[in-house]
Amino acid sequence: MSHSRFTFTLSLVSGLLISVALPTQANTDNSGAPIIIQGAMPVEAEHFAAKLDNVKEEHIGGWRFWKGTVDGYPVVVSETLKGMSNVAAATSIAALEFKPKAIINQGTAGGHDPALNVYDIVVGKYSVNLGAFKTPHKQPGEGSNSVEWKPMDLLASKGSAGEDKNAHSIRQFAADPQLLKAADQAVAGYQKGKVVSGVIGSADVWNSELDRIRFFHQQFNTSVEEMETASAAQIAAQFAIPFVGIRVLSNNITNNGKYDAQTGIACQDYVYDVLKAYIKDIKTAQK
Amino acid sequence: MSHSRFTFTLSLVSGLLISVALPTQANTDNSGAPIIIQGAMPVEAEHFAAKLDNVKEEHIGGWRFWKGTVDGYPVVVSETLKGMSNVAAATSIAALEFKPKAIINQGTAGGHDPALNVYDIVVGKYSVNLGAFKTPHKQPGEGSNSVEWKPMDLLASKGSAGEDKNAHSIRQFAADPQLLKAADQAVAGYQKGKVVSGVIGSADVWNSELDRIRFFHQQFNTSVEEMETASAAQIAAQFAIPFVGIRVLSNNITNNGKYDAQTGIACQDYVYDVLKAYIKDIKTAQK
Repeated sequence: MSHSRFTFTLSLVSGLLISVALPTQANTDNSGAPIIIQGAMPVEAEHFAAKLDNVKEEHIGGWRFWKGTVDGYPVVVSETLKGMSNVAAATSIAALEFKPKAIINQGTAGGHDPALNVYDIVVGKYSVNLGAFKTPHKQPGEGSNSVEWKPMDLLASKGSAGEDKNAHSIRQFAADPQLLKAADQAVAGYQKGKVVSGVIGSADVWNSELDRIRFFHQQFNTSVEEMETASAAQIAAQFAIPFVGIRVLSNNITNNGKYDAQTGIACQDYVYDVLKAYIKDIKTAQK
Repeated sequence: MSHSRFTFTLSLVSGLLISVALPTQANTDNSGAPIIIQGAMPVEAEHFAAKLDNVKEEHIGGWRFWKGTVDGYPVVVSETLKGMSNVAAATSIAALEFKPKAIINQGTAGGHDPALNVYDIVVGKYSVNLGAFKTPHKQPGEGSNSVEWKPMDLLASKGSAGEDKNAHSIRQFAADPQLLKAADQAVAGYQKGKVVSGVIGSADVWNSELDRIRFFHQQFNTSVEEMETASAAQIAAQFAIPFVGIRVLSNNITNNGKYDAQTGIACQDYVYDVLKAYIKDIKTAQK
Protein backbone atom coordinates (compact mmCIF):
# COMPACT_ATOMS: atom_id res chain seq x y z
CA MET A 1 0.00 0.00 0.00
CA SER A 2 2.97 2.31 0.22
CA HIS A 3 3.98 2.01 -3.42
CA SER A 4 3.51 4.73 -5.99
CA ARG A 5 0.49 4.49 -8.18
CA PHE A 6 -0.03 7.42 -10.42
CA THR A 7 2.75 9.17 -12.18
CA PHE A 8 1.71 12.27 -14.02
CA THR A 9 3.11 15.47 -15.31
CA LEU A 10 2.18 19.00 -14.37
CA SER A 11 2.65 21.72 -16.88
CA LEU A 12 3.09 25.05 -15.10
CA VAL A 13 2.54 28.47 -16.52
CA SER A 14 6.29 28.89 -16.68
CA GLY A 15 6.56 25.87 -18.94
CA LEU A 16 8.42 23.95 -16.24
CA LEU A 17 7.51 20.25 -16.24
CA ILE A 18 7.35 18.32 -13.01
CA SER A 19 6.76 14.58 -12.81
CA VAL A 20 5.15 13.50 -9.55
CA ALA A 21 4.66 10.02 -8.13
CA LEU A 22 1.71 9.89 -5.76
CA PRO A 23 1.57 7.41 -2.91
CA THR A 24 -1.63 5.38 -2.52
CA GLN A 25 -1.57 5.93 1.24
CA ALA A 26 -3.17 9.32 1.62
CA ASN A 27 -3.36 8.90 5.39
CA THR A 28 0.19 8.36 6.46
CA ASP A 29 -0.94 9.69 9.85
CA ASN A 30 -2.99 6.67 10.80
CA SER A 31 -4.59 8.46 13.73
CA GLY A 32 -7.07 10.15 11.40
CA ALA A 33 -7.87 7.06 9.36
CA PRO A 34 -11.54 6.10 9.63
CA ILE A 35 -13.01 3.03 11.25
CA ILE A 36 -15.26 1.03 8.92
CA ILE A 37 -18.47 -0.54 10.24
CA GLN A 38 -19.78 -3.15 7.79
CA GLY A 39 -23.34 -4.49 7.56
CA ALA A 40 -24.64 -6.58 4.65
CA MET A 41 -28.32 -5.66 4.54
CA PRO A 42 -30.10 -2.31 5.08
CA VAL A 43 -31.43 -3.71 8.38
CA GLU A 44 -27.82 -4.37 9.41
CA ALA A 45 -26.38 -0.98 8.37
CA GLU A 46 -28.94 1.85 8.23
CA HIS A 47 -29.55 1.97 11.98
CA PHE A 48 -25.83 2.44 12.54
CA ALA A 49 -25.54 5.05 9.78
CA ALA A 50 -28.25 7.07 11.53
CA LYS A 51 -26.04 7.24 14.64
CA LEU A 52 -23.24 9.07 12.81
CA ASP A 53 -22.68 12.80 13.18
CA ASN A 54 -22.00 14.96 10.09
CA VAL A 55 -23.06 12.10 7.83
CA LYS A 56 -22.71 12.05 4.04
CA GLU A 57 -23.84 9.19 1.82
CA GLU A 58 -21.57 8.08 -1.01
CA HIS A 59 -22.06 5.41 -3.69
CA ILE A 60 -19.12 3.53 -5.19
CA GLY A 61 -19.90 0.82 -7.74
CA GLY A 62 -23.08 -0.70 -6.38
CA TRP A 63 -22.17 -0.09 -2.75
CA ARG A 64 -23.37 2.54 -0.25
CA PHE A 65 -21.08 4.19 2.28
CA TRP A 66 -22.04 6.71 4.97
CA LYS A 67 -19.13 8.92 6.05
CA GLY A 68 -19.41 10.69 9.36
CA THR A 69 -18.01 10.92 12.85
CA VAL A 70 -18.53 9.40 16.28
CA ASP A 71 -17.18 11.40 19.21
CA GLY A 72 -15.38 13.51 16.61
CA TYR A 73 -13.53 10.54 15.12
CA PRO A 74 -14.05 9.57 11.43
CA VAL A 75 -16.28 6.53 10.89
CA VAL A 76 -17.62 5.04 7.65
CA VAL A 77 -20.64 2.72 7.66
CA SER A 78 -20.51 0.36 4.69
CA GLU A 79 -23.49 -1.56 3.30
CA THR A 80 -21.57 -4.50 1.88
CA LEU A 81 -24.52 -6.32 0.26
CA LYS A 82 -24.92 -10.02 0.92
CA GLY A 83 -22.49 -12.87 0.43
CA MET A 84 -18.80 -13.63 0.20
CA SER A 85 -18.16 -11.90 -3.16
CA ASN A 86 -20.01 -8.69 -2.38
CA VAL A 87 -18.32 -8.24 0.99
CA ALA A 88 -14.88 -8.94 -0.48
CA ALA A 89 -15.55 -6.19 -3.01
CA ALA A 90 -16.87 -3.76 -0.38
CA THR A 91 -13.83 -4.44 1.81
CA SER A 92 -11.43 -3.78 -1.07
CA ILE A 93 -13.24 -0.59 -1.98
CA ALA A 94 -13.05 0.57 1.64
CA ALA A 95 -9.35 -0.30 1.79
CA LEU A 96 -8.53 1.73 -1.33
CA GLU A 97 -10.91 4.65 -0.84
CA PHE A 98 -10.73 5.22 2.91
CA LYS A 99 -7.40 3.68 4.07
CA PRO A 100 -9.13 2.57 7.27
CA LYS A 101 -7.57 2.14 10.67
CA ALA A 102 -9.83 -0.85 11.39
CA ILE A 103 -12.85 -2.75 10.11
CA ILE A 104 -15.72 -4.17 12.19
CA ASN A 105 -18.00 -6.55 10.33
CA GLN A 106 -21.29 -7.00 12.17
CA GLY A 107 -24.83 -8.24 11.69
CA THR A 108 -27.08 -11.24 12.15
CA ALA A 109 -26.22 -14.94 12.13
CA GLY A 110 -27.71 -18.38 12.65
CA GLY A 111 -26.68 -20.39 15.71
CA HIS A 112 -24.48 -23.49 15.52
CA ASP A 113 -24.04 -23.81 19.28
CA PRO A 114 -27.11 -25.02 21.22
CA ALA A 115 -25.86 -23.09 24.28
CA LEU A 116 -26.47 -19.78 22.48
CA ASN A 117 -29.88 -18.10 22.21
CA VAL A 118 -31.45 -15.52 19.91
CA TYR A 119 -30.07 -12.06 20.90
CA ASP A 120 -26.81 -13.54 22.22
CA ILE A 121 -23.79 -11.96 20.57
CA VAL A 122 -20.64 -13.71 19.34
CA VAL A 123 -17.42 -11.72 19.18
CA GLY A 124 -15.36 -13.65 16.66
CA LYS A 125 -11.93 -14.48 18.02
CA TYR A 126 -11.51 -15.84 14.50
CA SER A 127 -13.62 -16.71 11.47
CA VAL A 128 -13.51 -19.59 9.00
CA ASN A 129 -14.74 -20.12 5.42
CA LEU A 130 -17.50 -22.77 5.49
CA GLY A 131 -17.77 -22.73 1.71
CA ALA A 132 -14.28 -23.93 0.73
CA PHE A 133 -14.04 -27.71 0.46
CA LYS A 134 -12.57 -30.56 -1.52
CA THR A 135 -14.96 -33.47 -1.87
CA PRO A 136 -13.80 -37.09 -1.89
CA HIS A 137 -14.07 -38.99 -5.16
CA LYS A 138 -17.43 -40.73 -5.52
CA GLN A 139 -18.63 -42.82 -8.44
CA PRO A 140 -21.99 -42.34 -10.15
CA GLY A 141 -24.72 -43.62 -7.83
CA GLU A 142 -22.66 -43.01 -4.68
CA GLY A 143 -24.34 -39.63 -4.03
CA SER A 144 -23.00 -36.60 -2.20
CA ASN A 145 -22.30 -36.29 1.52
CA SER A 146 -21.07 -32.87 2.59
CA VAL A 147 -19.92 -34.00 6.05
CA GLU A 148 -17.22 -36.07 4.30
CA TRP A 149 -15.77 -33.01 2.55
CA LYS A 150 -12.34 -31.79 3.62
CA PRO A 151 -11.72 -28.08 4.20
CA MET A 152 -9.67 -26.47 1.44
CA ASP A 153 -7.38 -23.56 2.28
CA LEU A 154 -7.12 -21.48 -0.87
CA LEU A 155 -4.37 -19.34 0.68
CA ALA A 156 -2.07 -22.28 1.42
CA SER A 157 -0.19 -22.01 -1.88
CA LYS A 158 -0.29 -20.43 -5.32
CA GLY A 159 -0.61 -23.82 -6.99
CA SER A 160 -3.66 -25.91 -7.89
CA ALA A 161 -5.91 -26.18 -4.82
CA GLY A 162 -7.10 -29.61 -5.82
CA GLU A 163 -3.58 -30.95 -6.23
CA ASP A 164 -2.20 -29.28 -3.08
CA LYS A 165 -1.80 -31.84 -0.29
CA ASN A 166 -1.05 -29.12 2.28
CA ALA A 167 -4.32 -27.24 1.79
CA HIS A 168 -6.62 -29.46 3.85
CA SER A 169 -6.81 -27.62 7.15
CA ILE A 170 -9.26 -24.77 7.65
CA ARG A 171 -7.74 -21.29 7.72
CA GLN A 172 -8.53 -19.18 10.77
CA PHE A 173 -8.78 -15.42 10.25
CA ALA A 174 -7.88 -14.00 13.66
CA ALA A 175 -9.39 -10.86 15.17
CA ASP A 176 -7.28 -7.88 16.16
CA PRO A 177 -6.45 -7.76 19.91
CA GLN A 178 -7.25 -4.05 20.31
CA LEU A 179 -10.68 -4.54 18.74
CA LEU A 180 -11.30 -7.56 20.98
CA LYS A 181 -10.37 -5.42 23.98
CA ALA A 182 -12.90 -2.77 22.94
CA ALA A 183 -15.56 -5.48 22.45
CA ASP A 184 -14.85 -6.69 25.97
CA GLN A 185 -15.19 -3.18 27.40
CA ALA A 186 -18.68 -2.85 25.89
CA VAL A 187 -20.06 -6.13 27.27
CA ALA A 188 -21.52 -4.64 30.45
CA GLY A 189 -23.79 -2.35 28.45
CA TYR A 190 -25.51 -5.16 26.52
CA GLN A 191 -28.69 -6.28 28.28
CA LYS A 192 -30.52 -8.35 25.64
CA GLY A 193 -28.46 -11.52 25.89
CA LYS A 194 -24.98 -12.89 26.56
CA VAL A 195 -21.86 -11.69 24.79
CA VAL A 196 -19.40 -14.54 24.21
CA SER A 197 -16.08 -15.06 22.46
CA GLY A 198 -16.55 -17.55 19.64
CA VAL A 199 -15.95 -18.63 16.07
CA ILE A 200 -17.85 -17.23 13.08
CA GLY A 201 -18.34 -19.48 10.04
CA SER A 202 -19.11 -17.89 6.67
CA ALA A 203 -20.36 -19.16 3.31
CA ASP A 204 -22.99 -18.38 0.68
CA VAL A 205 -25.04 -21.21 2.17
CA TRP A 206 -28.09 -21.16 4.44
CA ASN A 207 -27.65 -24.45 6.33
CA SER A 208 -30.64 -26.24 7.86
CA GLU A 209 -29.28 -29.80 7.87
CA LEU A 210 -28.66 -30.36 11.58
CA ASP A 211 -26.01 -33.04 11.00
CA ARG A 212 -24.06 -30.62 8.81
CA ILE A 213 -24.35 -27.85 11.40
CA ARG A 214 -23.18 -30.22 14.16
CA PHE A 215 -20.27 -31.29 11.94
CA PHE A 216 -19.19 -27.64 11.56
CA HIS A 217 -19.64 -26.99 15.29
CA GLN A 218 -17.61 -30.05 16.26
CA GLN A 219 -14.91 -29.92 13.57
CA PHE A 220 -14.34 -26.18 13.32
CA ASN A 221 -15.81 -24.93 16.65
CA THR A 222 -18.27 -22.62 14.88
CA SER A 223 -20.63 -20.70 17.16
CA VAL A 224 -22.71 -19.19 14.33
CA GLU A 225 -22.96 -19.05 10.55
CA GLU A 226 -23.51 -16.13 8.20
CA MET A 227 -22.33 -15.03 4.76
CA GLU A 228 -19.66 -12.37 5.05
CA THR A 229 -17.24 -12.31 7.97
CA ALA A 230 -14.52 -14.74 6.81
CA SER A 231 -14.42 -13.17 3.36
CA ALA A 232 -14.10 -9.64 4.75
CA ALA A 233 -11.46 -10.88 7.21
CA GLN A 234 -9.46 -12.49 4.40
CA ILE A 235 -9.40 -9.30 2.34
CA ALA A 236 -8.71 -7.08 5.37
CA ALA A 237 -5.72 -9.31 6.16
CA GLN A 238 -4.45 -8.90 2.59
CA PHE A 239 -4.46 -5.15 3.18
CA ALA A 240 -3.08 -5.52 6.76
CA ILE A 241 -6.14 -3.78 8.25
CA PRO A 242 -7.10 -4.75 11.85
CA PHE A 243 -10.43 -6.61 11.80
CA VAL A 244 -13.08 -8.18 14.00
CA GLY A 245 -16.44 -9.84 13.28
CA ILE A 246 -19.33 -9.40 15.73
CA ARG A 247 -22.57 -11.27 15.15
CA VAL A 248 -25.90 -11.55 16.95
CA LEU A 249 -27.99 -14.70 16.75
CA SER A 250 -31.14 -13.93 14.76
CA ASN A 251 -32.20 -17.59 14.96
CA ASN A 252 -30.83 -20.92 16.16
CA ILE A 253 -32.28 -24.10 14.70
CA THR A 254 -30.13 -26.24 17.01
CA ASN A 255 -32.37 -25.18 19.95
CA ASN A 256 -35.53 -23.97 18.16
CA GLY A 257 -34.63 -20.28 18.50
CA LYS A 258 -37.04 -18.48 16.15
CA TYR A 259 -35.92 -15.85 13.63
CA ASP A 260 -36.15 -12.23 14.87
CA ALA A 261 -35.04 -9.48 12.47
CA GLN A 262 -34.85 -6.92 15.31
CA THR A 263 -31.70 -8.66 16.59
CA GLY A 264 -29.83 -6.74 13.87
CA ILE A 265 -30.71 -3.47 15.61
CA ALA A 266 -29.53 -4.79 18.98
CA CYS A 267 -26.21 -5.83 17.43
CA GLN A 268 -25.65 -2.37 15.95
CA ASP A 269 -26.33 -0.81 19.36
CA TYR A 270 -23.72 -3.08 20.96
CA VAL A 271 -21.20 -2.43 18.18
CA TYR A 272 -21.75 1.30 18.60
CA ASP A 273 -20.56 0.91 22.21
CA VAL A 274 -17.62 -1.19 20.99
CA LEU A 275 -16.75 1.58 18.54
CA LYS A 276 -16.88 4.25 21.24
CA ALA A 277 -14.61 2.17 23.50
CA TYR A 278 -12.18 1.70 20.61
CA ILE A 279 -12.15 5.41 19.76
CA LYS A 280 -11.58 6.22 23.44
CA ASP A 281 -8.59 3.85 23.45
CA ILE A 282 -7.20 5.49 20.30
CA LYS A 283 -7.53 8.96 21.82
CA THR A 284 -5.92 7.83 25.10
CA ALA A 285 -2.99 6.33 23.20
CA GLN A 286 -2.50 9.61 21.32
CA LYS A 287 -2.19 11.70 24.48
CA MET B 1 -16.66 7.14 -9.14
CA SER B 2 -15.95 10.56 -10.55
CA HIS B 3 -15.40 12.29 -7.22
CA SER B 4 -12.08 13.77 -6.19
CA ARG B 5 -10.08 11.80 -3.71
CA PHE B 6 -6.67 13.20 -2.95
CA THR B 7 -5.86 16.81 -2.35
CA PHE B 8 -2.22 17.55 -1.71
CA THR B 9 0.25 20.33 -1.86
CA LEU B 10 3.47 20.49 -3.80
CA SER B 11 6.32 22.59 -2.54
CA LEU B 12 8.58 23.59 -5.39
CA VAL B 13 12.17 24.73 -5.20
CA SER B 14 10.97 28.24 -5.89
CA GLY B 15 8.75 28.11 -2.82
CA LEU B 16 5.63 28.28 -4.98
CA LEU B 17 2.80 26.19 -3.51
CA ILE B 18 0.37 24.39 -5.77
CA SER B 19 -2.67 22.55 -4.44
CA VAL B 20 -3.91 19.83 -6.76
CA ALA B 21 -7.15 17.84 -6.55
CA LEU B 22 -6.76 14.56 -8.37
CA PRO B 23 -9.78 12.85 -9.86
CA THR B 24 -10.09 9.09 -9.26
CA GLN B 25 -11.09 8.71 -12.88
CA ALA B 26 -7.74 8.78 -14.60
CA ASN B 27 -9.20 7.64 -17.91
CA THR B 28 -12.09 9.92 -18.72
CA ASP B 29 -11.58 9.01 -22.38
CA ASN B 30 -12.95 5.49 -22.29
CA SER B 31 -11.31 4.60 -25.59
CA GLY B 32 -7.99 4.51 -23.77
CA ALA B 33 -9.30 2.53 -20.79
CA PRO B 34 -7.33 -0.66 -20.36
CA ILE B 35 -8.55 -4.21 -20.86
CA ILE B 36 -7.99 -6.42 -17.80
CA ILE B 37 -6.88 -10.03 -18.25
CA GLN B 38 -7.41 -12.00 -15.02
CA GLY B 39 -5.70 -15.24 -14.02
CA ALA B 40 -5.85 -16.72 -10.51
CA MET B 41 -2.53 -18.55 -10.25
CA PRO B 42 0.95 -17.66 -11.52
CA VAL B 43 0.61 -20.44 -14.11
CA GLU B 44 -2.59 -18.72 -15.32
CA ALA B 45 -1.21 -15.15 -15.46
CA GLU B 46 2.56 -14.92 -15.85
CA HIS B 47 2.67 -16.33 -19.38
CA PHE B 48 0.21 -13.64 -20.46
CA ALA B 49 2.09 -10.90 -18.60
CA ALA B 50 5.23 -11.87 -20.55
CA LYS B 51 3.38 -11.14 -23.79
CA LEU B 52 2.79 -7.47 -22.90
CA ASP B 53 4.87 -4.67 -24.38
CA ASN B 54 6.21 -1.89 -22.13
CA VAL B 55 5.32 -3.92 -19.05
CA LYS B 56 5.49 -2.64 -15.46
CA GLU B 57 4.63 -4.74 -12.41
CA GLU B 58 2.57 -3.15 -9.65
CA HIS B 59 1.41 -4.53 -6.28
CA ILE B 60 -1.83 -3.36 -4.65
CA GLY B 61 -2.79 -4.98 -1.36
CA GLY B 62 -1.70 -8.58 -1.85
CA TRP B 63 -2.37 -8.58 -5.59
CA ARG B 64 -0.02 -8.31 -8.59
CA PHE B 65 -0.85 -6.35 -11.72
CA TRP B 66 1.24 -6.04 -14.88
CA LYS B 67 0.51 -2.91 -16.89
CA GLY B 68 1.53 -2.82 -20.51
CA THR B 69 0.26 -2.68 -24.06
CA VAL B 70 -0.79 -5.05 -26.84
CA ASP B 71 -0.78 -3.60 -30.34
CA GLY B 72 -0.33 -0.22 -28.67
CA TYR B 73 -3.53 -0.55 -26.61
CA PRO B 74 -3.37 -0.52 -22.76
CA VAL B 75 -3.75 -3.95 -21.14
CA VAL B 76 -3.41 -4.95 -17.47
CA VAL B 77 -2.79 -8.57 -16.49
CA SER B 78 -4.15 -9.24 -12.98
CA GLU B 79 -3.11 -12.16 -10.79
CA THR B 80 -6.34 -12.45 -8.82
CA LEU B 81 -5.25 -15.21 -6.42
CA LYS B 82 -7.55 -18.19 -5.95
CA GLY B 83 -11.17 -18.34 -4.93
CA MET B 84 -14.35 -16.29 -4.92
CA SER B 85 -13.26 -13.73 -2.30
CA ASN B 86 -9.84 -13.03 -3.74
CA VAL B 87 -11.14 -12.54 -7.27
CA ALA B 88 -13.94 -10.25 -6.06
CA ALA B 89 -11.28 -8.13 -4.36
CA ALA B 90 -9.00 -8.14 -7.41
CA THR B 91 -11.91 -7.16 -9.66
CA SER B 92 -12.87 -4.26 -7.37
CA ILE B 93 -9.28 -3.07 -7.21
CA ALA B 94 -9.06 -3.18 -11.00
CA ALA B 95 -12.36 -1.30 -11.32
CA LEU B 96 -11.20 1.50 -9.03
CA GLU B 97 -7.56 1.73 -10.07
CA PHE B 98 -7.74 1.17 -13.81
CA LYS B 99 -11.33 2.08 -14.85
CA PRO B 100 -11.19 -0.76 -17.38
CA LYS B 101 -13.01 -0.96 -20.68
CA ALA B 102 -13.50 -4.71 -20.24
CA ILE B 103 -12.44 -7.70 -18.14
CA ILE B 104 -11.57 -11.18 -19.40
CA ASN B 105 -11.31 -13.81 -16.67
CA GLN B 106 -9.45 -16.87 -17.93
CA GLY B 107 -7.63 -19.97 -16.73
CA THR B 108 -8.10 -23.66 -16.05
CA ALA B 109 -11.24 -25.58 -15.08
CA GLY B 110 -12.54 -29.07 -14.42
CA GLY B 111 -14.99 -30.61 -16.88
CA HIS B 112 -18.67 -31.18 -16.08
CA ASP B 113 -19.64 -32.14 -19.61
CA PRO B 114 -18.47 -35.60 -20.77
CA ALA B 115 -18.40 -34.31 -24.36
CA LEU B 116 -15.52 -31.96 -23.53
CA ASN B 117 -11.87 -33.04 -23.37
CA VAL B 118 -8.73 -31.73 -21.73
CA TYR B 119 -7.50 -28.72 -23.81
CA ASP B 120 -11.02 -27.89 -25.01
CA ILE B 121 -11.96 -24.29 -24.23
CA VAL B 122 -15.29 -23.01 -22.92
CA VAL B 123 -16.26 -19.42 -23.70
CA GLY B 124 -18.76 -18.63 -20.96
CA LYS B 125 -21.98 -17.25 -22.43
CA TYR B 126 -22.79 -16.90 -18.74
CA SER B 127 -21.50 -18.06 -15.35
CA VAL B 128 -23.24 -19.25 -12.20
CA ASN B 129 -22.29 -19.43 -8.51
CA LEU B 130 -22.08 -23.11 -7.51
CA GLY B 131 -21.44 -22.21 -3.88
CA ALA B 132 -24.67 -20.37 -3.01
CA PHE B 133 -27.38 -22.70 -1.71
CA LYS B 134 -30.14 -23.10 0.81
CA THR B 135 -30.34 -26.59 2.23
CA PRO B 136 -33.63 -28.25 3.15
CA HIS B 137 -34.36 -28.80 6.83
CA LYS B 138 -33.03 -32.15 8.06
CA GLN B 139 -33.26 -33.56 11.56
CA PRO B 140 -30.28 -35.02 13.45
CA GLY B 141 -29.43 -38.39 11.93
CA GLU B 142 -30.87 -37.47 8.50
CA GLY B 143 -27.45 -36.49 7.14
CA SER B 144 -26.57 -34.05 4.36
CA ASN B 145 -27.30 -34.42 0.67
CA SER B 146 -26.00 -31.57 -1.48
CA VAL B 147 -27.99 -32.55 -4.58
CA GLU B 148 -31.15 -31.63 -2.64
CA TRP B 149 -29.94 -28.08 -2.02
CA LYS B 150 -31.72 -25.21 -3.77
CA PRO B 151 -29.74 -22.46 -5.44
CA MET B 152 -29.83 -19.17 -3.51
CA ASP B 153 -29.62 -15.89 -5.41
CA LEU B 154 -28.03 -13.41 -3.01
CA LEU B 155 -28.76 -10.54 -5.41
CA ALA B 156 -32.53 -11.19 -5.56
CA SER B 157 -33.32 -8.80 -2.71
CA LYS B 158 -31.77 -6.80 0.11
CA GLY B 159 -33.64 -8.86 2.73
CA SER B 160 -32.74 -12.08 4.51
CA ALA B 161 -31.65 -14.66 1.93
CA GLY B 162 -33.00 -17.51 3.99
CA GLU B 163 -36.42 -15.92 4.36
CA ASP B 164 -36.66 -14.76 0.73
CA LYS B 165 -38.98 -17.03 -1.25
CA ASN B 166 -38.00 -15.38 -4.54
CA ALA B 167 -34.29 -16.18 -4.24
CA HIS B 168 -34.36 -19.84 -5.31
CA SER B 169 -33.34 -19.65 -8.94
CA ILE B 170 -29.70 -19.51 -9.94
CA ARG B 171 -28.44 -16.15 -11.17
CA GLN B 172 -26.80 -16.10 -14.59
CA PHE B 173 -24.00 -13.57 -15.14
CA ALA B 174 -24.10 -12.95 -18.88
CA ALA B 175 -21.05 -12.27 -21.04
CA ASP B 176 -20.68 -9.10 -23.06
CA PRO B 177 -21.63 -9.51 -26.76
CA GLN B 178 -18.58 -7.65 -28.11
CA LEU B 179 -16.23 -9.87 -26.09
CA LEU B 180 -18.09 -12.98 -27.30
CA LYS B 181 -17.67 -11.74 -30.87
CA ALA B 182 -13.92 -11.36 -30.34
CA ALA B 183 -13.76 -14.85 -28.81
CA ASP B 184 -15.50 -16.20 -31.88
CA GLN B 185 -13.06 -14.45 -34.21
CA ALA B 186 -10.11 -16.16 -32.48
CA VAL B 187 -11.49 -19.70 -32.70
CA ALA B 188 -9.79 -20.59 -35.99
CA GLY B 189 -6.37 -20.00 -34.47
CA TYR B 190 -6.79 -22.53 -31.65
CA GLN B 191 -5.44 -25.94 -32.65
CA LYS B 192 -5.21 -27.85 -29.35
CA GLY B 193 -8.88 -28.66 -28.91
CA LYS B 194 -12.40 -27.43 -29.54
CA VAL B 195 -13.67 -23.99 -28.54
CA VAL B 196 -17.31 -24.10 -27.47
CA SER B 197 -19.87 -21.73 -26.02
CA GLY B 198 -20.90 -22.93 -22.57
CA VAL B 199 -21.63 -22.25 -18.92
CA ILE B 200 -18.96 -21.73 -16.28
CA GLY B 201 -19.78 -22.74 -12.68
CA SER B 202 -17.76 -21.22 -9.83
CA ALA B 203 -17.32 -21.99 -6.13
CA ASP B 204 -14.58 -22.49 -3.56
CA VAL B 205 -15.19 -26.22 -3.93
CA TRP B 206 -13.20 -28.88 -5.76
CA ASN B 207 -15.94 -31.36 -6.68
CA SER B 208 -15.16 -35.04 -7.29
CA GLU B 209 -18.56 -36.54 -6.45
CA LEU B 210 -19.81 -37.54 -9.89
CA ASP B 211 -23.48 -37.40 -8.87
CA ARG B 212 -23.03 -33.83 -7.70
CA ILE B 213 -21.24 -32.87 -10.92
CA ARG B 214 -24.00 -34.48 -12.99
CA PHE B 215 -26.59 -32.60 -10.92
CA PHE B 216 -24.85 -29.29 -11.73
CA HIS B 217 -24.51 -30.21 -15.40
CA GLN B 218 -28.18 -31.19 -15.69
CA GLN B 219 -29.75 -28.50 -13.47
CA PHE B 220 -27.59 -25.51 -14.36
CA ASN B 221 -26.08 -26.60 -17.71
CA THR B 222 -22.52 -26.19 -16.41
CA SER B 223 -19.76 -27.12 -18.87
CA VAL B 224 -16.91 -26.71 -16.37
CA GLU B 225 -16.20 -25.72 -12.78
CA GLU B 226 -13.56 -23.44 -11.31
CA MET B 227 -13.27 -20.93 -8.47
CA GLU B 228 -13.42 -17.38 -9.80
CA THR B 229 -15.50 -16.54 -12.89
CA ALA B 230 -18.98 -16.02 -11.40
CA SER B 231 -17.59 -13.92 -8.57
CA ALA B 232 -15.58 -11.70 -10.95
CA ALA B 233 -18.63 -11.45 -13.23
CA GLN B 234 -20.85 -10.37 -10.33
CA ILE B 235 -18.49 -7.61 -9.29
CA ALA B 236 -17.83 -6.48 -12.87
CA ALA B 237 -21.61 -6.19 -13.33
CA GLN B 238 -21.85 -4.03 -10.19
CA PHE B 239 -19.36 -1.66 -11.82
CA ALA B 240 -21.03 -2.00 -15.26
CA ILE B 241 -17.81 -3.31 -16.84
CA PRO B 242 -18.18 -5.63 -19.87
CA PHE B 243 -17.01 -9.14 -18.92
CA VAL B 244 -16.40 -12.62 -20.27
CA GLY B 245 -14.99 -15.80 -18.72
CA ILE B 246 -12.90 -18.16 -20.86
CA ARG B 247 -11.74 -21.48 -19.41
CA VAL B 248 -9.71 -24.42 -20.67
CA LEU B 249 -10.32 -27.93 -19.35
CA SER B 250 -7.27 -28.98 -17.33
CA ASN B 251 -9.01 -32.22 -16.35
CA ASN B 252 -12.39 -33.91 -16.70
CA ILE B 253 -13.31 -36.64 -14.24
CA THR B 254 -16.58 -37.28 -16.09
CA ASN B 255 -14.59 -38.91 -18.93
CA ASN B 256 -11.26 -39.71 -17.21
CA GLY B 257 -9.47 -36.69 -18.67
CA LYS B 258 -6.22 -36.44 -16.67
CA TYR B 259 -4.96 -33.17 -15.17
CA ASP B 260 -2.50 -31.23 -17.35
CA ALA B 261 -1.15 -27.95 -15.96
CA GLN B 262 0.10 -26.89 -19.42
CA THR B 263 -3.49 -26.29 -20.49
CA GLY B 264 -3.24 -22.94 -18.67
CA ILE B 265 -0.60 -21.82 -21.16
CA ALA B 266 -2.75 -22.87 -24.12
CA CYS B 267 -5.68 -20.89 -22.72
CA GLN B 268 -3.58 -17.75 -22.36
CA ASP B 269 -2.41 -18.11 -25.98
CA TYR B 270 -6.03 -18.33 -27.14
CA VAL B 271 -7.11 -15.39 -24.96
CA TYR B 272 -4.21 -13.37 -26.38
CA ASP B 273 -5.77 -13.84 -29.81
CA VAL B 274 -9.20 -12.92 -28.41
CA LEU B 275 -7.68 -9.77 -26.96
CA LYS B 276 -6.06 -8.82 -30.26
CA ALA B 277 -9.38 -9.31 -32.08
CA TYR B 278 -11.15 -7.17 -29.47
CA ILE B 279 -8.55 -4.40 -29.73
CA LYS B 280 -8.83 -4.50 -33.53
CA ASP B 281 -12.61 -4.07 -33.20
CA ILE B 282 -12.14 -1.13 -30.83
CA LYS B 283 -9.73 0.56 -33.22
CA THR B 284 -12.04 -0.03 -36.20
CA ALA B 285 -14.97 1.48 -34.28
CA GLN B 286 -12.87 4.56 -33.49
CA LYS B 287 -12.05 5.28 -37.13
